[in-house]
Amino acid sequence: MFHYQLILAYDGTAYGGWAVQPNAVTIQQLVQGAFSTLLRLPVLVTGSGRTDAGVHALAQSAHFSHSEPVNIFRLFGGLNGLLPRDIRVKEIRPASPDFHARKSALRKIYRYYLTLGPVCNPFTRNYSWHISSQFNLAAVREAASYFLGTRDFSSFANIGCHRDREKDTVRTIYRLDIVMTEDGLYFEFEGDGFLYKMVRNIVGALVESGLGNCNPSQIPNILAACDRKAAGRTAPPQGLFLVKVIY
Amino acid sequence: MFHYQLILAYDGTAYGGWAVQPNAVTIQQLVQGAFSTLLRLPVLVTGSGRTDAGVHALAQSAHFSHSEPVNIFRLFGGLNGLLPRDIRVKEIRPASPDFHARKSALRKIYRYYLTLGPVCNPFTRNYSWHISSQFNLAAVREAASYFLGTRDFSSFANIGCHRDREKDTVRTIYRLDIVMTEDGLYFEFEGDGFLYKMVRNIVGALVESGLGNCNPSQIPNILAACDRKAAGRTAPPQGLFLVKVIY
Repeated sequence: MFHYQLILAYDGTAYGGWAVQPNAVTIQQLVQGAFSTLLRLPVLVTGSGRTDAGVHALAQSAHFSHSEPVNIFRLFGGLNGLLPRDIRVKEIRPASPDFHARKSALRKIYRYYLTLGPVCNPFTRNYSWHISSQFNLAAVREAASYFLGTRDFSSFANIGCHRDREKDTVRTIYRLDIVMTEDGLYFEFEGDGFLYKMVRNIVGALVESGLGNCNPSQIPNILAACDRKAAGRTAPPQGLFLVKVIY
Repeated sequence: MFHYQLILAYDGTAYGGWAVQPNAVTIQQLVQGAFSTLLRLPVLVTGSGRTDAGVHALAQSAHFSHSEPVNIFRLFGGLNGLLPRDIRVKEIRPASPDFHARKSALRKIYRYYLTLGPVCNPFTRNYSWHISSQFNLAAVREAASYFLGTRDFSSFANIGCHRDREKDTVRTIYRLDIVMTEDGLYFEFEGDGFLYKMVRNIVGALVESGLGNCNPSQIPNILAACDRKAAGRTAPPQGLFLVKVIY
């Protein structure tokens, strides 16, 4: 078998997320469909992880194997020709036989965008969470500091349907930057892995701190509770971008 | 009568342009519809100019009059509540009785975005023109220089259906900047006014120069011909943004 890595960018607005599922058009489904058309047999394309409905990727990583070597240049053009314009293959490269898009990942980088101000920007409506109320940035910075390091994040993890491998709920967040933009800010998370909805649940707590609905000093207690019910709301999907998978 | 200026931002992707027309949903139509609902009578909202189907605005300017003073705060909230999320009212302010969104305009600023590179960015697909071939920036800079100043731009004007006032085809371009972005560039035009499709026709010539299909030194001759047939293609609408109207 010949092994390849695939880098994809996609606007998740129109899709039911990455992973194939019965009731929605998904990105994995369309990518696998384009592969099947080009290689004339079913191809399994394994992503570094699921992204939920409405979540975007600047560089999702995936792998696939094929019984004979593929013409990378032709496959690249063929996939981008067959895929809709909101899903793009950015790169295809040979990978070692033991490369696994999910299991080999060492770190992941996610970004979450907020638009701040009384009026939402029509150009970021599908790519950010619009917060129109007064926002206390100092409180957000304090709240963010409590998430850094190696912790049990079960208070910030939802229970998915096929998530039995997430019995270990300890993860490390190496970096949680707050970067100001023209009309708001983004949070950039770098971690060794993220539990189901963990980024969106942490952003929910950061925003609640900024809005004055949660005292940042409560966050250590919420983490210590190891109980999803101790934490607050989940940020909506459209602000979230998978930025990079590091191997 | 009481007079007001309106500043609007819109994503033009879903619309048949600004101006009311029989066969498409337009931005002016939806804005006037929202006004009628709130003020309980028909309101004419006059824009600074038309934007074509697929063209965007960061700050379109418009005016309207009403027989009694309006509660600006309530109207602002009401309009943004009724309008779809790809059209936003950014500001409403009282205007002098002689203010006219089109006739009082002194200058306009437009931007045109290009995405350069082999793969289009899925996030800019509706907001830029994707150029995948080699692009000679020096030729584009030379081409741009010929458009500056006061000239007869009839070679770069399309003939619209209701454009009889455009018998005078002399316009002044004060500024035509080329600004590099993360994945391409934008052209920023500042002029005292622009003929029908003039920005998109000039961008067409700039891009043809960059692709090597047009020698920039030919542009003075094309301008001198005063004939639309002398110039080349029209850039597609989705890269164009009305940035500002200056009074």
